Amino acid sequence: MNNFEFVNPTRLIFGKGQISRLNDLVKKGTKVLMTYGGGSIKKNGVYDQVKEGLKGCEVIEFGGIEANPDYNTLIKAVDICKKESVEFILAVGGGSIIDGTKFIACAANYKGDDPWQIVVNDKETLPAALDFGTVLTLPATASEMNNGAVISRRDLNQKFAFHNPNGFPKFSILDPTVVYSLPKKQISNGIVDTYAHTLEQYLTTCLDTKVMDRWAEALLLTLIEEAPELMKAESHPNYDSCANFMLTATMGLNGFIAMGVEQDWATHMIGHELTALCGLDHGETLAIVYPGLMDVMRKEKHGKLLQYARRVWNIDDKDEEKAIDMAIEKTEGFFRSIGKKTRLSEYGIGQDVIEEIVRRFTERSWRLGENGIVTPEKARMILERVK
Amino acid sequence: MNNFEFVNPTRLIFGKGQISRLNDLVKKGTKVLMTYGGGSIKKNGVYDQVKEGLKGCEVIEFGGIEANPDYNTLIKAVDICKKESVEFILAVGGGSIIDGTKFIACAANYKGDDPWQIVVNDKETLPAALDFGTVLTLPATASEMNNGAVISRRDLNQKFAFHNPNGFPKFSILDPTVVYSLPKKQISNGIVDTYAHTLEQYLTTCLDTKVMDRWAEALLLTLIEEAPELMKAESHPNYDSCANFMLTATMGLNGFIAMGVEQDWATHMIGHELTALCGLDHGETLAIVYPGLMDVMRKEKHGKLLQYARRVWNIDDKDEEKAIDMAIEKTEGFFRSIGKKTRLSEYGIGQDVIEEIVRRFTERSWRLGENGIVTPEKARMILERVK
Repeated sequence: MNNFEFVNPTRLIFGKGQISRLNDLVKKGTKVLMTYGGGSIKKNGVYDQVKEGLKGCEVIEFGGIEANPDYNTLIKAVDICKKESVEFILAVGGGSIIDGTKFIACAANYKGDDPWQIVVNDKETLPAALDFGTVLTLPATASEMNNGAVISRRDLNQKFAFHNPNGFPKFSILDPTVVYSLPKKQISNGIVDTYAHTLEQYLTTCLDTKVMDRWAEALLLTLIEEAPELMKAESHPNYDSCANFMLTATMGLNGFIAMGVEQDWATHMIGHELTALCGLDHGETLAIVYPGLMDVMRKEKHGKLLQYARRVWNIDDKDEEKAIDMAIEKTEGFFRSIGKKTRLSEYGIGQDVIEEIVRRFTERSWRLGENGIVTPEKARMILERVK
Repeated sequence: MNNFEFVNPTRLIFGKGQISRLNDLVKKGTKVLMTYGGGSIKKNGVYDQVKEGLKGCEVIEFGGIEANPDYNTLIKAVDICKKESVEFILAVGGGSIIDGTKFIACAANYKGDDPWQIVVNDKETLPAALDFGTVLTLPATASEMNNGAVISRRDLNQKFAFHNPNGFPKFSILDPTVVYSLPKKQISNGIVDTYAHTLEQYLTTCLDTKVMDRWAEALLLTLIEEAPELMKAESHPNYDSCANFMLTATMGLNGFIAMGVEQDWATHMIGHELTALCGLDHGETLAIVYPGLMDVMRKEKHGKLLQYARRVWNIDDKDEEKAIDMAIEKTEGFFRSIGKKTRLSEYGIGQDVIEEIVRRFTERSWRLGENGIVTPEKARMILERVK
């Protein structure tokens, strides 16, 4: 087991009817910026519940934050925070809204000239973020319980992640009934995203991390077990399935399964480029890349791939390579079973995009994956594998 | 799944050599009360590492806190905190030292006349505790990452738990190498304690809590797998076994496996009485009571007992009652395999003690267990079962 440091101060408030808890979580009289997206919260009742919960606060609304939140949108909210002396931000939405809000909260207290440095400059000293909380409407990114965010800049064709040690949400309210009205595509994106988050922290080096291994497997198994119910065409919502999904998504990237293990993240980095260059949803990119990475990196990840085959897919074939082949097939099959395409060609993505991604990784001298094992050349092989 | 609220702000610093991190965790010049027990830390090198880490701080030592920390000992430390205007407390020890320190930290800021009310009066409003951190020397209670404490009062033959919402350690340093020099009896107490903590949050009602169920099973399986290595007579310390044990103990009672599930705690409450009346170690009491509780409450806990048999002990007997019998036998056998007695008679404890415990529970009108299913009469049956 590796040495590690863990901290996660976010207060999780989980269950039906819990949005009303805003009444005691946000002090009356607070000046609140309420951030949200395209307005789906006005259709599913969440908007009204939030407004009711914030009664007695001075609320400024900032809607219209897009999926893969854009720097040039967010900077407008930063200006409002500064001009209006906003005291608290409440993000109401999914990962994009919450990620965007983390940037707003951080940039509002930033003293430098160029807030984009917060995102791109690892060595930038980040300020304590403005206090913020979240009401989650889409289980997927776990942004509601971590201090990371992914921000896009369309004018530069870029998409990067940043982490602020002082940027955890103060609280996050998770009401699983929000899942009832989600489009199936968003649910399947959330399933793939959570599955991939878990693999990034699991499918690496064997370090005798018994608890973390089984905790990660628990999340994978829960997703596999709940997916059919969640993807059912009819809308007879099963509360416990939604609750299991929502909790799994949060636990997938809040540090709880990351203690003492190596981490990969190559699939996410390759996926970010596919989103930046071709506009695919984040979850869509992961469903393509992961099976490819498993195959190309099978030697380096042999021990964990075999454990994954045995424990998650219950494959007991004595031939280890065959067991791994079957696990990769099962993984791709799982993604396809929830409606995800798993090949670049299905989106009309060709060799030119592969070349551009390899060019970018080479230019940036990126060695991705645990211990830098995913070189630009390996990234090419992964993408070629899933053409 | 039940609604729940979760928060745990303790910073965990885990791994070999991490005690030196005190240098940056406690600000130079701070007035620190250093609490510890009987002096074993002076033999295993921890004392020296802590003193080195606290260089530049003004350190007042308070040693001699006993196992099952006593109110009348702790109150002396409270007086020192007040008289010397202590700013930070560092607990160096196991659960007893940390529990005692939580009481000290809470009582130091308490304005009432009778600090014992902190422990016995549920309705007492507790103050924010004085800031404190811990250096853990004995994996068992998870007190290093929760806000609960158990305090004894020998002059009244009493032992009770209390929780302070504002009483989490600021940080806890867990260096698994401290396990190397522990007496086997303390290791086996820690294993039983962690196993029991996990069962208290697992072996209750089936609520379709897929993640929590598997996370709890992960802890149980890790303990079962690591116990033989940890209990080996020779001292060829296996670092990863110690690390897995230490992490499991912390995760067993820090709220991570408690989300959305029912909890029991009857075994602990019965065990506390056995400690108060007969002086048994906490872990010793649990090894006796749990197999008895499993059998007596088998109807109410049927679903979970069966899942426990199948998933933890790999028992696939189709006869459900037989499978549960085997799981209870396996549990008792596991405790015995690490040197624990599992019957009251082995400690010379007779009917008079059983009667006294039932009398106390009846007097207090206690209905223990999830949904109050463990009545005083059931407590009697449990104790009779393990005579």
